[in-house]
Amino acid sequence: MRIALVGGTGELGEGLALRLGRDTGFELTIGSRDQRKASECAEAYRRELRRHDVDRRMDAATNESAAAEATVVVLSVPPYYVTETVEAIEPALDSETVLVSPAVGMSGHDDGVRYNPPPAGSVTELVVETAPDDVPVVGAFANVPGARIANLDERIEIDTPVVGDSSAAKEVVIDVVSELDGIRAVDAGPLSNAAAVEAITPFLITLAQQNEGFVDLGVKFV
Amino acid sequence: MRIALVGGTGELGEGLALRLGRDTGFELTIGSRDQRKASECAEAYRRELRRHDVDRRMDAATNESAAAEATVVVLSVPPYYVTETVEAIEPALDSETVLVSPAVGMSGHDDGVRYNPPPAGSVTELVVETAPDDVPVVGAFANVPGARIANLDERIEIDTPVVGDSSAAKEVVIDVVSELDGIRAVDAGPLSNAAAVEAITPFLITLAQQNEGFVDLGVKFV
Repeated sequence: MRIALVGGTGELGEGLALRLGRDTGFELTIGSRDQRKASECAEAYRRELRRHDVDRRMDAATNESAAAEATVVVLSVPPYYVTETVEAIEPALDSETVLVSPAVGMSGHDDGVRYNPPPAGSVTELVVETAPDDVPVVGAFANVPGARIANLDERIEIDTPVVGDSSAAKEVVIDVVSELDGIRAVDAGPLSNAAAVEAITPFLITLAQQNEGFVDLGVKFV
Repeated sequence: MRIALVGGTGELGEGLALRLGRDTGFELTIGSRDQRKASECAEAYRRELRRHDVDRRMDAATNESAAAEATVVVLSVPPYYVTETVEAIEPALDSETVLVSPAVGMSGHDDGVRYNPPPAGSVTELVVETAPDDVPVVGAFANVPGARIANLDERIEIDTPVVGDSSAAKEVVIDVVSELDGIRAVDAGPLSNAAAVEAITPFLITLAQQNEGFVDLGVKFV
């Protein structure tokens, strides 16, 4: 099975590429709007993996080409590029593709960081609105600290709630996550719970701002 | 220092009474609208503590009398009794009292449980609106699973975000929590972050509904 990290040149994309590269046997494609940037990043991730004694293939492509080859497509782009990215890769999507939405809209305030969802209710629901109707959409990785998972020396023990209206698609994502060391997928129910999941991310950032020694927090349900 | 558990006959009140009774040396008063019910509960908690080799005093009083003697007053009542409870104990409150709000408004749906805040924005802000202006209010214990902490045999390792506009009052609460085994207070900033804290509770209940083996979840920031 192939996983495409669309916008895979950003922090979360890097983290997922490195962890998927180290911990799983899935075929991986790094996607970017710019093919050359995708290739440079894929090469950098391979070098980083070799530094951790993992020698594995990592492909690079434009976002659309990356999505076309993949069963799981992760939209690891900032929230305000989600719509145009889904529109760009739309020809590559079909009912066999699982589209994964990790982005969270946030805004900074004096008191911390607030959840700033799009009118759709959540970024995941925005993806559902934008994608073709037959493409199953799953919210996952929203609360995963990108910078921290991009550091393979960092041992993590975090949860990632998974939401969506297609149980089969959620199952695909949960199975992928189950192969990652230190990241546990928890079922957060249907799409209508996406906002509750996404809202945790700004709160984690607020906690890191308010408490010394808290950096790039994740969440664990215990 | 004395802590009053107003509405201390409920599940969270019981849990806090038992854990405070076991882990700390603070004087404790169990409050209830009904003096006899308060006395019965305080006696039951003492018996439960003796079963765990802790023999300690636990006082009982009406909510107002309990609040009058205490430095920290925990409003461990259901969310829809918060206003009338604050009004009932109001004569006993002053600027030296720290009023602690743990309640969360929620509503059940097919997809899980949703946060259902009062028009004030959060229950903690409702307490601020209702209490006299000079009484410092702190939100704490909102995400603590009452039934689980009420079982002293249960080992826990959870966090409780603490919010409020008075740093001094928050510090009092954080110091109290620091004496409880397995519960860590984290500073969640000013009162305006109370909704973000409270919203985690219905999400924890949703996760417990959606995942086998998850019961009375708490949250940990890692």
